[in-house]
Amino acid sequence: LEGMFKLSSWLGCSEFTPLVALELVSDTKEEAITWLLQRIRDKQRNGGAELLVEQLRPGLGVQEKQNPNLFLIGASLQRLLSGAEDLGLFKEFNDGSMRGFTCTNKQNFKDFQGDGDGFLSVAECQYIIKHELDTLRAKDESHVPGHTQAKLYPGKSIIRRLLSKGIMVQMFPLHQKEELKRLTFSWYKKVKLSLQPLGKIQCNYEGQALYFGFLEYFTFALIPMALIGVPYYLFDWDDYDKYVIFAVFNLIWCTVILELWKRFSATLAYRWGTLSRKKAFEEPRPGFHGVLGFNPVTGREEPLYPNAKRQLRVYCVSLPFVLLCLYGSLYVMMIYFQMEGWALSLHDEDPTFWTGVLLFIPSIIYAVVIEVLNLIYRYAAEFLTEWENHRLESSYQNHLILKVLVFNFFNCFASLFYIAFVMQDMVLLRQSLATLLITSQILNQFMEAFLPYWLQRRRNKKMMRRVTKMRTQEDKELPIEEQVRLEADMSTYLGTFDDYLELFLLFGYVSLFSCVYPLAAVLVLLNNITEVYSDAFKMCRVFKRPFSDPASNIGVWQLAFEAMSVIAVVTNCALIGMSPQVKAYFPESDMQLILWTVAIEHGLLAVKFILTFLIPDVPKPIQIQLAKLEFESLEALKKKVNTWGMFSVI
Amino acid sequence: LEGMFKLSSWLGCSEFTPLVALELVSDTKEEAITWLLQRIRDKQRNGGAELLVEQLRPGLGVQEKQNPNLFLIGASLQRLLSGAEDLGLFKEFNDGSMRGFTCTNKQNFKDFQGDGDGFLSVAECQYIIKHELDTLRAKDESHVPGHTQAKLYPGKSIIRRLLSKGIMVQMFPLHQKEELKRLTFSWYKKVKLSLQPLGKIQCNYEGQALYFGFLEYFTFALIPMALIGVPYYLFDWDDYDKYVIFAVFNLIWCTVILELWKRFSATLAYRWGTLSRKKAFEEPRPGFHGVLGFNPVTGREEPLYPNAKRQLRVYCVSLPFVLLCLYGSLYVMMIYFQMEGWALSLHDEDPTFWTGVLLFIPSIIYAVVIEVLNLIYRYAAEFLTEWENHRLESSYQNHLILKVLVFNFFNCFASLFYIAFVMQDMVLLRQSLATLLITSQILNQFMEAFLPYWLQRRRNKKMMRRVTKMRTQEDKELPIEEQVRLEADMSTYLGTFDDYLELFLLFGYVSLFSCVYPLAAVLVLLNNITEVYSDAFKMCRVFKRPFSDPASNIGVWQLAFEAMSVIAVVTNCALIGMSPQVKAYFPESDMQLILWTVAIEHGLLAVKFILTFLIPDVPKPIQIQLAKLEFESLEALKKKVNTWGMFSVI
Repeated sequence: LEGMFKLSSWLGCSEFTPLVALELVSDTKEEAITWLLQRIRDKQRNGGAELLVEQLRPGLGVQEKQNPNLFLIGASLQRLLSGAEDLGLFKEFNDGSMRGFTCTNKQNFKDFQGDGDGFLSVAECQYIIKHELDTLRAKDESHVPGHTQAKLYPGKSIIRRLLSKGIMVQMFPLHQKEELKRLTFSWYKKVKLSLQPLGKIQCNYEGQALYFGFLEYFTFALIPMALIGVPYYLFDWDDYDKYVIFAVFNLIWCTVILELWKRFSATLAYRWGTLSRKKAFEEPRPGFHGVLGFNPVTGREEPLYPNAKRQLRVYCVSLPFVLLCLYGSLYVMMIYFQMEGWALSLHDEDPTFWTGVLLFIPSIIYAVVIEVLNLIYRYAAEFLTEWENHRLESSYQNHLILKVLVFNFFNCFASLFYIAFVMQDMVLLRQSLATLLITSQILNQFMEAFLPYWLQRRRNKKMMRRVTKMRTQEDKELPIEEQVRLEADMSTYLGTFDDYLELFLLFGYVSLFSCVYPLAAVLVLLNNITEVYSDAFKMCRVFKRPFSDPASNIGVWQLAFEAMSVIAVVTNCALIGMSPQVKAYFPESDMQLILWTVAIEHGLLAVKFILTFLIPDVPKPIQIQLAKLEFESLEALKKKVNTWGMFSVI
Repeated sequence: LEGMFKLSSWLGCSEFTPLVALELVSDTKEEAITWLLQRIRDKQRNGGAELLVEQLRPGLGVQEKQNPNLFLIGASLQRLLSGAEDLGLFKEFNDGSMRGFTCTNKQNFKDFQGDGDGFLSVAECQYIIKHELDTLRAKDESHVPGHTQAKLYPGKSIIRRLLSKGIMVQMFPLHQKEELKRLTFSWYKKVKLSLQPLGKIQCNYEGQALYFGFLEYFTFALIPMALIGVPYYLFDWDDYDKYVIFAVFNLIWCTVILELWKRFSATLAYRWGTLSRKKAFEEPRPGFHGVLGFNPVTGREEPLYPNAKRQLRVYCVSLPFVLLCLYGSLYVMMIYFQMEGWALSLHDEDPTFWTGVLLFIPSIIYAVVIEVLNLIYRYAAEFLTEWENHRLESSYQNHLILKVLVFNFFNCFASLFYIAFVMQDMVLLRQSLATLLITSQILNQFMEAFLPYWLQRRRNKKMMRRVTKMRTQEDKELPIEEQVRLEADMSTYLGTFDDYLELFLLFGYVSLFSCVYPLAAVLVLLNNITEVYSDAFKMCRVFKRPFSDPASNIGVWQLAFEAMSVIAVVTNCALIGMSPQVKAYFPESDMQLILWTVAIEHGLLAVKFILTFLIPDVPKPIQIQLAKLEFESLEALKKKVNTWGMFSVI
């Protein structure tokens, strides 16, 4: 039961355990607040959410700036359990299988003891509350009381309207101090060789746990490559011919690890109950707008936006924009090569120490420029994707990921491809790869962890100072009022997008070109290990706690990694074909060499696809468990039909 | 309501409408028959099938040879409707959507009138009866009464045991004369330019209808290619250079038609209610054997066979065997080329008319040998796949299809690839392609339609003669007794396997090499048109009526066709690269040419895969309908949960 959270264990200021905080703008009308609280507290049969809610008492530093409209939300145990049933949460059954939780059957679930306190994890409780708030719908109100601009219509999600009209600033789950302490200790406070506490992470950050699982898996997968890479680096550094074996290894490695990850991911998702959980019907995103009409699927009134118009925007604006950006990135690349050539000629003319240093400058500048371009493009892509007006969050995410992926891939790897295949200069390739990899890692770690940490620390200290100024404290813990306000000020965790993107690019460096720079795997491995710690730290200390977002797999990223591995096969085959070693076998005819290379490459791609089909994505034991569940539900349905049949005869 | 079948309309000899016939061996023990009939007639709550069954009266020609153990099976309308609910048949609802049929809701289905007679099609009724018979399970019998060798255990399907022990000869659905007459008329009796009556075909041959749909789609898809091919053939016959445009067309064509087929197939399957029907849990195939144990999924007692052992058989016996056969096929190909060379040298030495004819002989012999090898291999593959002891029919089918596909592909196309890319002789390629295509078509049509038809006709006539000998007939129709016996003697339709295989090979000829022989599309088009008629005829007159086998798509064949289209892209790119026209652009460097060809080919393959992702497999309106159903079931579940929650509170 480790890592499980008990509602009763939380010693707060109120008579209930606050799980989620909700912040309205400070000039919200009193009637709007009364109405909202009443709707949240109202019984479910009256269309309310039946949750507990309470205003946060003002903090110690009573200043003008402090926003009084902060609310804490919790729920009774009964409500949480029935919410879990609503959501179809999967929990471990007595027989070790995972089943959808039902209240009638609750005693048969493994960890259900007594009244069920401690049965649900914090993340689950918060996810349930978020779901209940999200599905709190307007009845016959035409607008939010006191705010005529915030129109409502029957069935509209109230929270989403408040968010989209800016009346609600944010809604965020609260860190649970005791939990957090235990988690941080086992996660990153002790230096250890053991695995991350994935189970505990899952309890706290359900949707993000899969990312940490992937990070850990990827790190372990790099070990064999790093182990081969080091001796390669030490003994064959100047022997450019020897990279063939490494390229072959690369080729197999990138295919095998992705196939195995799918199985591992299915195992994790099954154990966490997200593999077969049915997704609820997706609500439109808060930013989605359109003409009010009837959704053809649900029959509910909601804004509609014609698909044709969206497609037009995607293909006539976004696509050309992306292509233009790619062209711009190529242009920057060409400037880099000119700079490179200029530095080289300067060094050749008059080789001094300073011109020797100068040789590295263009690569470093280029690496920095790439990062900056990626950042700028990222904002543009977000703006464009927002403008495309996708109805669903998932569709928005997919379009955004696709845009960003293509550009980042191009931006990071175009120069390497150019050096490898057009200039065919393996020494320069190695040098560029090293510079790019090291510079981008340093930049990334800085931007991702140290900068936000430093900012947060400063804010933290200020708050602490204020608190200690106001009263002398025995325990150095912050009181709940201050803690919530502190968390409200923390930056928002923007999802696993950037983390996956970083891994994707690292995977690219390793799988595409590590045969010419065998240390790449070692560098990436080191980076991943620090990444585990900095990400863990980020999640626990720097950012607001994110709502969990249960996922059965890593979704579109799996696809992206697989595309990368296909490109890796092609690239490695080409590198092998270009190696002097292989060329020696075809002394007379370059054509023969190319034809053979292409033939073997096609063969390998075919084998790769066949392997993808042959290796089942879900391990056998889990397949059996899933089939069992399916079979049972079919049988249950049959029995129900028979009973109904008999009733209808009577 | 056209094509719909009314139970009441069938004027048979018995008080009920016989739908399925069941034949036991003539030396079946009397007690076994009594027991079986009693189990079939028994009420469902006693574990029976609750069907109507009656022995077929002896025919007119009372001979010793006649098997008396022929039984007719039917069912009451009520039983059929509740069976439809059990099976989760999808029927058209009042609002035009397709929904799972339920008895309580029956009045809301579109074609439900009065007591529901005519609501289910014949194929559906027969499918229901087959399902009920298949799931008739042993209770506490330890063996079939009177046949101690036919062991039973609780839960074992009785029919499957009877089949596997040879006590039951066959179980087959009966042709419904009136239906059949109407169908044959609209299907193939009238010469027409219009489409096949797919709806009617679906009512009669549910699972096979998708094949006919595909055949028709493929035929239409060939029209543009044939239209381009004819002028090409007429005007550019000797201008080998001009095939580049045709190859480009090929390339696009084979990608586009497969993508569109997926959408069309989804539309058909939705309209026929097979798209979202839940598959019942699959029973082991009758031939499956193993040690009795407990199925981990169902918990039922059934034979188990370790997966490792099966894998061992697949990879250590079947795979080497297939490879050996491929080697043999290569060997035969080499002999063909030797013969070809020998004939050519003979013709060159002393060119007469006879040596001119002799030039075609090797190709024709080779084409015949290929067909014979395919046939022999087919039996070997069936034997091997049977020996691999697959638990499920679907897994058996997949392994068989894979084995046969690979060999047939190799056997049919290896020589063409050799001529095209090793010998690079476009004239010979054209000649070989034409000979192969025409010979194999003639052979196929003969083996597939004329031979069985001729055999069937002979049998038919004999029966007619006997009947007219016995009594003078006013109507020339056979009485039911004779009709059933006649059908029992018809050959069994072995599934759509061979039909799909033929289409697959034809698709290969067209998509791979039609640019060098533009008439290929025309020939295949003609073949397809005759194929529609001969297949229709075969289904209606030559073969026993098959049980329908509802399929939501063409399954593993879709994959096979897509693999072929990938190979077609590669082949056409290579052919384009080899064309003198393109070579003229790279007068100096062959290497440049090859590199460009490979680059473009990779680009095209990438585009192909991206297209596969971009084009949704299911058309939007059907997506909406499916989402609607999903949403409603979620809502219904939620309501149920709420009701239960309230109950549990009370």
